Amino acid sequence: MPLYVTDKKQLLLQNPAVKFQAVTLQTSQVARTLQTKHITERKGSKKTDPNLMATPVKVYGPPLSTAVSRVLATLLEKDVPFQIIPVDMSKGEHKKPDYLKIQPFGQVPAFQDESISLFESRSICRYVCEKYADKGNKGLYGTNPLEKASIDQWVEAEGQSFGPASGALVFQLAFAPRMNIPQDQGAIKQNEEKLGKVLDIYEQRLGESRFLAGDEFTFADLSHLPNGDYLVNATDKGHLFTSRENVGRWWNEISARESWKKVVEMRKSS
Amino acid sequence: MPLYVTDKKQLLLQNPAVKFQAVTLQTSQVARTLQTKHITERKGSKKTDPNLMATPVKVYGPPLSTAVSRVLATLLEKDVPFQIIPVDMSKGEHKKPDYLKIQPFGQVPAFQDESISLFESRSICRYVCEKYADKGNKGLYGTNPLEKASIDQWVEAEGQSFGPASGALVFQLAFAPRMNIPQDQGAIKQNEEKLGKVLDIYEQRLGESRFLAGDEFTFADLSHLPNGDYLVNATDKGHLFTSRENVGRWWNEISARESWKKVVEMRKSS
Repeated sequence: MPLYVTDKKQLLLQNPAVKFQAVTLQTSQVARTLQTKHITERKGSKKTDPNLMATPVKVYGPPLSTAVSRVLATLLEKDVPFQIIPVDMSKGEHKKPDYLKIQPFGQVPAFQDESISLFESRSICRYVCEKYADKGNKGLYGTNPLEKASIDQWVEAEGQSFGPASGALVFQLAFAPRMNIPQDQGAIKQNEEKLGKVLDIYEQRLGESRFLAGDEFTFADLSHLPNGDYLVNATDKGHLFTSRENVGRWWNEISARESWKKVVEMRKSS
Repeated sequence: MPLYVTDKKQLLLQNPAVKFQAVTLQTSQVARTLQTKHITERKGSKKTDPNLMATPVKVYGPPLSTAVSRVLATLLEKDVPFQIIPVDMSKGEHKKPDYLKIQPFGQVPAFQDESISLFESRSICRYVCEKYADKGNKGLYGTNPLEKASIDQWVEAEGQSFGPASGALVFQLAFAPRMNIPQDQGAIKQNEEKLGKVLDIYEQRLGESRFLAGDEFTFADLSHLPNGDYLVNATDKGHLFTSRENVGRWWNEISARESWKKVVEMRKSS
């Protein structure tokens, strides 16, 4: 799996989650085929679905990125057709004026829906859930303010607690070696402790309910898939999940979603 | 201004934004009077407002906390009556079973609206905006999916980029000395650089529009007030804002909101 990095200094100045987003690789022909297939499948059902958009939404960035894959999983759950636009960071495409117009921070993903441009993966996911409320998994982001809030508080827990700790571990253990960046053992130890404490809270929560926000799989669970998948499958820290009964049971269930399995397939094909 | 800290080790293991939330002080009688006044004022208008809740919503935690003050500013903008419930972290109240039932991470704020309990400040703010859509500032979180998404992407930028860097500076420069924690000069330098880069992007954005999400003050701007206020008024890094023309103009405007001035009054009275 070749990795292309443009600016190590810039990576080191960013937080681990962002660093990770800044890792890219060329979207291969295989992945393009997958994407085209998805679009074609949706177009094929146009006659029976008046709500189907004529133009698929666009996601800029590689499926390898945790933030990009969060958006892809949401689009697949919501059955919203999409097109992936490669952003070649090895050529500095994420810093070019045209790209910065839709993603001023020069990160991936960026997102377009007709004339609308958005950035920040969790905001894009919320938008997709709101705009396409009647499509696909209708309960993914709840159907009333209380359900949404119950989901959203766990998305924030992911963004503020689970994400930074798991993202740092994934970066240090899975990506730094491939990028010839020395591993920071102190950061590994500190973030393993942090993540352990976060997962202790999840263990208790998941002893009370099947999923984070209640009895149904929602955006709250989905948002944990990108970093969780790398942690379990690309580092030696999977025991943080599997040693906790409820977390392990939850992880097995959410990582087996068809939507996520498609995202993993896209990653592997990249 | 007395500060009570229960567990320095725990603080150091958390990220800067969370550390800061874990700083507390007793809510004083003066602050209680302020809160009671707000509730009384709202109760006085009950006869003319059928939507007014009989029971004010409850916010657990001190106004000194950045996360608590984000929620208070939102409630004031939305004209939703509230009651502040003191959480005395010096006595470990944030780690007691009853509190952990509504805030499993043992942080502030927690929030209750009748039978509903929530945590994570940005999620609480989104809930308040959605649930009380017709009250107070009706456009605070937009009125359709596109407006919401435009606002939400800048809230995420605050939560993922502006917040961690500004929160680390505020902690190191304003709070660590009061807590007798040695300042980390490396963290100060690194986060000043990070914040400068983030604010360069804000400078450009605020040259295109009066506020972050467009022509109106929204939750996107509000979410920056808690850390921004400490940075400008309690550290020597205010020049990061004032040296940038558009950011300085924006900051002067948003920090002059009546809602925020009331929060600052509550902080001072604490």
